[in-house]
Amino acid sequence: MQVNLVSATPLRNIILAARTSHDSRAKSDTPHNNLLGPTDTALLRRLIKLGHDSVLEHVVYTFDITGISRALLQELVRHRIASYTVQSTRYTLGKILSEYTEEEIISNFCIIPQNEHNIFVEELSKIIHALKLLYMLGLENDKLKYLLPECWKTNVVMTVNARELMHILELRLSSKALWEFQELARLLLEEVKQVHPQLWELIRQERGIGDESNG
Amino acid sequence: MQVNLVSATPLRNIILAARTSHDSRAKSDTPHNNLLGPTDTALLRRLIKLGHDSVLEHVVYTFDITGISRALLQELVRHRIASYTVQSTRYTLGKILSEYTEEEIISNFCIIPQNEHNIFVEELSKIIHALKLLYMLGLENDKLKYLLPECWKTNVVMTVNARELMHILELRLSSKALWEFQELARLLLEEVKQVHPQLWELIRQERGIGDESNG
Amino acid sequence: MQVNLVSATPLRNIILAARTSHDSRAKSDTPHNNLLGPTDTALLRRLIKLGHDSVLEHVVYTFDITGISRALLQELVRHRIASYTVQSTRYTLGKILSEYTEEEIISNFCIIPQNEHNIFVEELSKIIHALKLLYMLGLENDKLKYLLPECWKTNVVMTVNARELMHILELRLSSKALWEFQELARLLLEEVKQVHPQLWELIRQERGIGDESNG
Amino acid sequence: MQVNLVSATPLRNIILAARTSHDSRAKSDTPHNNLLGPTDTALLRRLIKLGHDSVLEHVVYTFDITGISRALLQELVRHRIASYTVQSTRYTLGKILSEYTEEEIISNFCIIPQNEHNIFVEELSKIIHALKLLYMLGLENDKLKYLLPECWKTNVVMTVNARELMHILELRLSSKALWEFQELARLLLEEVKQVHPQLWELIRQERGIGDESNG
Repeated sequence: MQVNLVSATPLRNIILAARTSHDSRAKSDTPHNNLLGPTDTALLRRLIKLGHDSVLEHVVYTFDITGISRALLQELVRHRIASYTVQSTRYTLGKILSEYTEEEIISNFCIIPQNEHNIFVEELSKIIHALKLLYMLGLENDKLKYLLPECWKTNVVMTVNARELMHILELRLSSKALWEFQELARLLLEEVKQVHPQLWELIRQERGIGDESNG
Repeated sequence: MQVNLVSATPLRNIILAARTSHDSRAKSDTPHNNLLGPTDTALLRRLIKLGHDSVLEHVVYTFDITGISRALLQELVRHRIASYTVQSTRYTLGKILSEYTEEEIISNFCIIPQNEHNIFVEELSKIIHALKLLYMLGLENDKLKYLLPECWKTNVVMTVNARELMHILELRLSSKALWEFQELARLLLEEVKQVHPQLWELIRQERGIGDESNG
Repeated sequence: MQVNLVSATPLRNIILAARTSHDSRAKSDTPHNNLLGPTDTALLRRLIKLGHDSVLEHVVYTFDITGISRALLQELVRHRIASYTVQSTRYTLGKILSEYTEEEIISNFCIIPQNEHNIFVEELSKIIHALKLLYMLGLENDKLKYLLPECWKTNVVMTVNARELMHILELRLSSKALWEFQELARLLLEEVKQVHPQLWELIRQERGIGDESNG
Repeated sequence: MQVNLVSATPLRNIILAARTSHDSRAKSDTPHNNLLGPTDTALLRRLIKLGHDSVLEHVVYTFDITGISRALLQELVRHRIASYTVQSTRYTLGKILSEYTEEEIISNFCIIPQNEHNIFVEELSKIIHALKLLYMLGLENDKLKYLLPECWKTNVVMTVNARELMHILELRLSSKALWEFQELARLLLEEVKQVHPQLWELIRQERGIGDESNG
């Protein structure tokens, strides 16, 4: 699994919005797009503490997520306040089955749960064998995919605002979440912490989201 | 696949809303909740013809959808302006694998694409065999489901308003849609036509949605 | 202000959804659409306690709200996960200004804040006088409404699910909310308590929403 | 009215998403974030022509909108698939009434419909006079605002994706829209044309949105 943040709107957007609400733009001390001064940091802390989350919607992230399973995809897209574009199995399945060996497919196009390698892969290889056979017999992609195991990899471009991302992380960093979703959540958080460290540190402090000791 | 409409809000809601907008409630001639008089029918036709679709949001349907594949589920839940509750694989997978034979699982818990019975089932039975084996070896549900084929059946309770349903049907009654989604769309339409025949006949006439000759 | 619940989908929908998730429909003891048995009541309490709110989306309410101010309308429609149809000022303003006296307009088409009657009405009557004058001089509705005071009454048909309604009530029953929104929130709650007393009593007990001692 | 685009995510996001769907990233010829090469331009044209609008959600704009009327605000926020932060009347009304003269308030804090200056302003000044009087008598902001005329200016920070913005422009560039919303729509379009000229030119060519000859 790989997660790349391909774009983020400025952290300053949140301050602009909050200061529009209270007509206090003149007080802003944000020197750069993604770096807040002490006064604006205090304001942001207050907003997060008090749950004035709607201003967080003005920061929007687009992620390039590659190599997650279709099992995880099922859970990810249930978060409806986000935009998703997903790799089409319809267009790609036949090509993969025809151009790669069983071993290559298992290595490159499937997610293997941790600590389950040998026995899992053995059974998976029988499934890939079945898929390749049916492909060669001419079964079309829209039917073939009914045998696709949910470990099959897919790629997603996801656009989501900071408010909804905070909500997703709160649910999915938890140890009760699907193991692969926990990993995705950690990678999403790592990415946004790099571009907006102040925001996500305040969210950690005031809401406990992303706190190592939790989970 | 089975689709049952478990609740529908009154067709009269649309008329109430439209007549609130223009302050013309006194003109309504709707005698019953789901049956419009001629004046209100003409009003509804005008709304649909002119694309004043927002009033259609006041009619809301809840469907009990049983026995669709997880392949179809992937596509269904991408329609974000609706509410879904889905059968949890996590809670049900182990139980099914332990209590049923391979043949019973294939018959009762899998979707077989039409005209593909023999060869498809032969390969599917190998997959079910693998799943049962890994279950017996103690693989937990959250890892086991990574080998689950997407033909695996699931159940969904879906709540959606008439505006969004119209949009879903427009896309999914088309012959370009996934074959199983076409079937779901036809069953959804059949259900709502029974409770609100006037609405869906007007939508057919003015928008061509649900027209036999299309698709 | 008047609030009438014109339709509600069955409380049973929530149970159907929750029991679909865990494949436990056989255990349901709900005898009627809107009345839960003890087992299902215990299930609903657990869902609300644990914050499994998504199943609440399958109960949907449509309200006929008459006689709220446009000041309140501004705040109401900011709750985006709901459907609204609003009386069009464009269609109704001229008619009201031409057919009613100043006194009638103040009595029937304006909201007067409590305890502020005399002085408020005196100034309001000057505004209505100005509106009537400009109407007679031929100013069109789309410009005339720029002088409309925000106490001007409007009517709204609102469709909202129980999850979002719960969220609205949590914010707007509070004594920090706009006084008129507090009143609307109380009336919305009164209506839904009549049709689904069990649901809203559980929400009060487990979340404190609608608790008299709060606010 | 002033509209400033304060942030825009890269046009390249749309191409990344579309090429993820069809697994054709290698074919991209976009040299910079907001400038497409000829191959990607042809792809974008096809997407817009065929109505594959969901990929447009990955371009997101944040606007700083100052000096629109609360009449326009009422209509703007009805577009629910967007994020809004609005200047709070509650916090600003008293300050304005106490610190400015009637003339200054009319000049700086009210929208005057075009070609209606004299008579409109004359009546408006009576309203402002009433507001100032009630303010001095101690009426609190939450009640005072019930006399506020809808021409009162407000400021909004709005975040919206290109798909929803396209929909808003389609409705509000029309000569049937509220005159002030037409102006806002034109300014929004001017701003996004500067940062993403290729996108909005293709939308004009393929959908007719923003076409001078329309409206």
